Amino acid sequence: MKAAILGISGYTGMILLRMLADHPEIKEIIPVSSSKPGEKIIDIDPGIGKAVMEKTAALNNCVVDISSAVTQKPDVVFAALPHLASATTCEPFFGKSVVIDLSADLRIKDHDLFQKAYNTPPPRPDILKIAVYGLCEIYEKEIKKADVIANPGCYPTCTLLPIIPLAAKGFIQGTIVTNALSGISGAGKKATIGNLYVERTENTCAYLPGKTHRHFTEIKKELDSFDKSLEIFFNPHLVPIKRGMHAASVVSLKSNVSEQDIEKVYNEYYGNKKFIVLKGKKLPETRDVWGSNRCDISWQIQDGKILLFSVIDNLIKGASGQAVQNMNIRFNFDEALGLKQYGEL
Amino acid sequence: MKAAILGISGYTGMILLRMLADHPEIKEIIPVSSSKPGEKIIDIDPGIGKAVMEKTAALNNCVVDISSAVTQKPDVVFAALPHLASATTCEPFFGKSVVIDLSADLRIKDHDLFQKAYNTPPPRPDILKIAVYGLCEIYEKEIKKADVIANPGCYPTCTLLPIIPLAAKGFIQGTIVTNALSGISGAGKKATIGNLYVERTENTCAYLPGKTHRHFTEIKKELDSFDKSLEIFFNPHLVPIKRGMHAASVVSLKSNVSEQDIEKVYNEYYGNKKFIVLKGKKLPETRDVWGSNRCDISWQIQDGKILLFSVIDNLIKGASGQAVQNMNIRFNFDEALGLKQYGEL
Amino acid sequence: MKAAILGISGYTGMILLRMLADHPEIKEIIPVSSSKPGEKIIDIDPGIGKAVMEKTAALNNCVVDISSAVTQKPDVVFAALPHLASATTCEPFFGKSVVIDLSADLRIKDHDLFQKAYNTPPPRPDILKIAVYGLCEIYEKEIKKADVIANPGCYPTCTLLPIIPLAAKGFIQGTIVTNALSGISGAGKKATIGNLYVERTENTCAYLPGKTHRHFTEIKKELDSFDKSLEIFFNPHLVPIKRGMHAASVVSLKSNVSEQDIEKVYNEYYGNKKFIVLKGKKLPETRDVWGSNRCDISWQIQDGKILLFSVIDNLIKGASGQAVQNMNIRFNFDEALGLKQYGEL
Amino acid sequence: MKAAILGISGYTGMILLRMLADHPEIKEIIPVSSSKPGEKIIDIDPGIGKAVMEKTAALNNCVVDISSAVTQKPDVVFAALPHLASATTCEPFFGKSVVIDLSADLRIKDHDLFQKAYNTPPPRPDILKIAVYGLCEIYEKEIKKADVIANPGCYPTCTLLPIIPLAAKGFIQGTIVTNALSGISGAGKKATIGNLYVERTENTCAYLPGKTHRHFTEIKKELDSFDKSLEIFFNPHLVPIKRGMHAASVVSLKSNVSEQDIEKVYNEYYGNKKFIVLKGKKLPETRDVWGSNRCDISWQIQDGKILLFSVIDNLIKGASGQAVQNMNIRFNFDEALGLKQYGEL
Repeated sequence: MKAAILGISGYTGMILLRMLADHPEIKEIIPVSSSKPGEKIIDIDPGIGKAVMEKTAALNNCVVDISSAVTQKPDVVFAALPHLASATTCEPFFGKSVVIDLSADLRIKDHDLFQKAYNTPPPRPDILKIAVYGLCEIYEKEIKKADVIANPGCYPTCTLLPIIPLAAKGFIQGTIVTNALSGISGAGKKATIGNLYVERTENTCAYLPGKTHRHFTEIKKELDSFDKSLEIFFNPHLVPIKRGMHAASVVSLKSNVSEQDIEKVYNEYYGNKKFIVLKGKKLPETRDVWGSNRCDISWQIQDGKILLFSVIDNLIKGASGQAVQNMNIRFNFDEALGLKQYGEL
Repeated sequence: MKAAILGISGYTGMILLRMLADHPEIKEIIPVSSSKPGEKIIDIDPGIGKAVMEKTAALNNCVVDISSAVTQKPDVVFAALPHLASATTCEPFFGKSVVIDLSADLRIKDHDLFQKAYNTPPPRPDILKIAVYGLCEIYEKEIKKADVIANPGCYPTCTLLPIIPLAAKGFIQGTIVTNALSGISGAGKKATIGNLYVERTENTCAYLPGKTHRHFTEIKKELDSFDKSLEIFFNPHLVPIKRGMHAASVVSLKSNVSEQDIEKVYNEYYGNKKFIVLKGKKLPETRDVWGSNRCDISWQIQDGKILLFSVIDNLIKGASGQAVQNMNIRFNFDEALGLKQYGEL
Repeated sequence: MKAAILGISGYTGMILLRMLADHPEIKEIIPVSSSKPGEKIIDIDPGIGKAVMEKTAALNNCVVDISSAVTQKPDVVFAALPHLASATTCEPFFGKSVVIDLSADLRIKDHDLFQKAYNTPPPRPDILKIAVYGLCEIYEKEIKKADVIANPGCYPTCTLLPIIPLAAKGFIQGTIVTNALSGISGAGKKATIGNLYVERTENTCAYLPGKTHRHFTEIKKELDSFDKSLEIFFNPHLVPIKRGMHAASVVSLKSNVSEQDIEKVYNEYYGNKKFIVLKGKKLPETRDVWGSNRCDISWQIQDGKILLFSVIDNLIKGASGQAVQNMNIRFNFDEALGLKQYGEL
Repeated sequence: MKAAILGISGYTGMILLRMLADHPEIKEIIPVSSSKPGEKIIDIDPGIGKAVMEKTAALNNCVVDISSAVTQKPDVVFAALPHLASATTCEPFFGKSVVIDLSADLRIKDHDLFQKAYNTPPPRPDILKIAVYGLCEIYEKEIKKADVIANPGCYPTCTLLPIIPLAAKGFIQGTIVTNALSGISGAGKKATIGNLYVERTENTCAYLPGKTHRHFTEIKKELDSFDKSLEIFFNPHLVPIKRGMHAASVVSLKSNVSEQDIEKVYNEYYGNKKFIVLKGKKLPETRDVWGSNRCDISWQIQDGKILLFSVIDNLIKGASGQAVQNMNIRFNFDEALGLKQYGEL
């Protein structure tokens, strides 16, 4: 199989390159960048080794532009591009390749919600209609048939995976309060003073709290699809880690729900999933899943509330890893092919 | 004035040493440690410079033991000792020196609450009765007359300062959800695998969540003294910063309370306080207060909730700095004497 | 093939566990620890995922002790144990399994040198005699026939790989000055105050400089085997990174040696090696090789000196990765099997 | 006294603001920036507290432009501006205020050397002639009479302080090899991808090694003024710390120089200096001097070489702190006024 990566020089593009080089079903990778066509990949990304370069050998280890990528007819296209630029850039591939879009462009089907979150109408309403939300553990069946997959955001993935089973069963109620911690790579590879090493090391802060982060909208629309009565306040924070994400939610449990009920529903949803580790009361650490496609989930009941804790690697399960998992599901490969289940030390 | 520091080799002791060396009213510092009597301070703490050593010159720059410290009749004693060891170690100073205890031993007056949080009865019930809770911006009047001051914990200081004015006015109701992030120095200078650099860098996690952290009890008993109807869930997290603390609370606002009411009450409580910076909707960063005795507070109202954000340096306003501020208040010095108002870059 | 890992709970043991779980020729892993027999691996190391556990399934995912490991007749034993404990612990495996010792016990054949570096005679002189120094790119031929392999130290690996080709050709002379920077994981997983997060973050220092570090002896004896006239001063430093190692050497070039000569000899030695990337004048970063088994090498000539720069991941090419590479060579697998060539982002 | 800070929004400007606010002889601070005139200081730098703002009260806490600063006739001007922009920007102050230039513009008197290092002739040859190199512990006498002071670079300060006494006495010979480690703040507050948190955390590398860094020229011309026969190779590295600098030099000792000679000369030069701590064989850590104006120096003799180790805070003794020390010397204040001698924990 042939895969194109649009946006090879960003963090998610660079990780996709590594993952696909390791993937036994991918025979050739087409690295694409509008800003760096003709450059050697090794110059853009000196971390790749000789084996990665072999998979791009047909291209002489060089980055190509979109039009050249189109002529090579990739089976699958990963769009690792900025929000609002992605869907339009993918245009020439729709209908020809399976497109997995890592941006937010195709995640929110409701016109008004999108407009509110992004201050502009959604870019391709026709494509939006057929796009499937690629939260793998929840929408496997839909993904199998999708030609356009909207890869979920990192915050929604980390926040929703522990909540959805409880919401789907009607176990919870009222207002959820979620506090999430994100690694700095979530901001992408852009030169800004705010994300300099000196500004972020030994520093932490909240940003866009309550209902103001764009991912709030993505989380809320998913929650609505399971239980419209749930409200949520979502406080994201920056913490000085390169990669990783942690979500802690405090949720009101309905009075008739027992610990056994909770355990049962989690096992039902995730017991046989390769990338979900159910930890019971043991609290997870982001380091446990660093570099892996895992989401570790922990829960405990206190005084009528259920406390939920979940961790992912924001660049893997929160981006490139889930994108490869979506490809695996869509092409009927083993879901875990080419993906790591262990966290780096 | 002569000051003794019990526990000179821990982080809060080392910082007290620096602060008191800078303090114009302190003429001599007696560095005390039960484990290192006779050792040169400079060997324990190579970061101190020549000026700090001059203030301990009478002692030949050496650490002394408790009994030697007693004979020198310090005016004020700072106990920077482990919980459950502090109050008993301070015994020979009670009634002779003003004692400022940085441990938790004298913070919780209720016997049962203490027992529940620390699995043992409070160490000195007689002293507990006269101890004043040293949250400086709230209990200034009481501190002025106190001979024993229980210096507040870092989490309670950071969490309570934004909440107390609202609770005191009856502006809030229901269940507060607080998520707090702490620097690793909060765990003290103890050799444990869990706090090794390799274990904590690029890693984050929650611990003792909901109602299980000992500081939960301290927070709850303070809240109760303003409004017994308030409930709180408190989720502390470790983030890879050496120093610093961040609290984010989501609180239900009573329906008749306006933004103007909030601003007014904060100005009333803190407008003229040197160590509180009211930031309105601008969110604070822990770096802003690094090394200072400040607490920066931010708030915003969304859909019936008030979101509160506050930052301190856990070792300064959360420990040694507030201890010096307590001394300043108690001895009628300028509250800010010897304390920094700016954060290090 | 069956592999035993002695010292499963240390950092190199934990990484070996992950690597061998990914290795296509290893069918079963025997995790061994004298301190934790009977414990579930997942409790010692929550970072491993479901796939890693499957490879230890026969053991019920539990750690065993040495004697139990012996009865299972592993084909290969990785000893990830403290110096001076390793060779004696491996006793029951010598002659039965191929032993790859990650400690320093079998690296220095000279009795007096060992005595001087470790203050004790070498533990097993008989085994020492047959042990092969496992610097893979240099001693491939010897490793193929070895039943006991002394896996090199991280500093020697990083320092020697760029120097050996030049020394072997007689291109250099006089006194080499090497400055090396090491990640904190080099100190192992031991509870010490000196390696606490608070002590090491935002801090850097030299330690055991010149000729006083134990790895100095290991480096010097290797240099001697190529050119006895070379002297070296070796200054190691601690820098606040979890993993990674950087060496910078300033070396006097003989006057008749040209840039072309240098390039030629490096290509001769390393041009077809999968884990060496020759970068010419482009300087390497430790991040480039993080998590990989690579050593990236850079050089430039200035005013009669050649400046050499090299980077490795101290836990991979400097420990567990080179150990697996040694196994691959010894058992005639592809040298790169189960090892990563790209650095994590 | 009135002080102007040109370039208030950079790191050295922000630190000068804090230091001068603490300085008892400075009654008013004029914050200057060409890019942000009219902006509130607190918006540019939320870390400053109420006390800092009081010292700029006359300006309504706002930044002004150069021409407005000129009309206010500051006694002293600190130019914390980019290289090659500084000397010309200072034009209107020469002859009227004492100018302390933190850039490299006035450090190198030799036209050709400057041209070689900066690819352009030195900006103000007339001023260059009267400028004094402000290495405080060495040129105190000259600084006392200077109206223009060229504040030394961080690498030269850290490297030269341990070497100069030995060079001045003729104790050393041949080629010095220096390896230096710098905190990331040395690159200033500029938005570049290379200095993003994600790029620099858990990463280390050398850059501009040997004789290619601009500070090499500055170091070499100083060395020359003591002993022209000395050669030096200077390898700077980036390490992931916000602030701090470490230099390690390996130097050939003349055969007749004893340990006692070394100790004597260091005591002669630095024994009574407030900001130099002589540590003998005890190795320094950058953390020891974090936030202080100190340089800690350590040395040991091995096999004919003397190994030198020194640490500074690159933003304090390596920039803003030494600038204030220069002001203190020039205006006959106590050299240590307003400067810290202890390192933050």
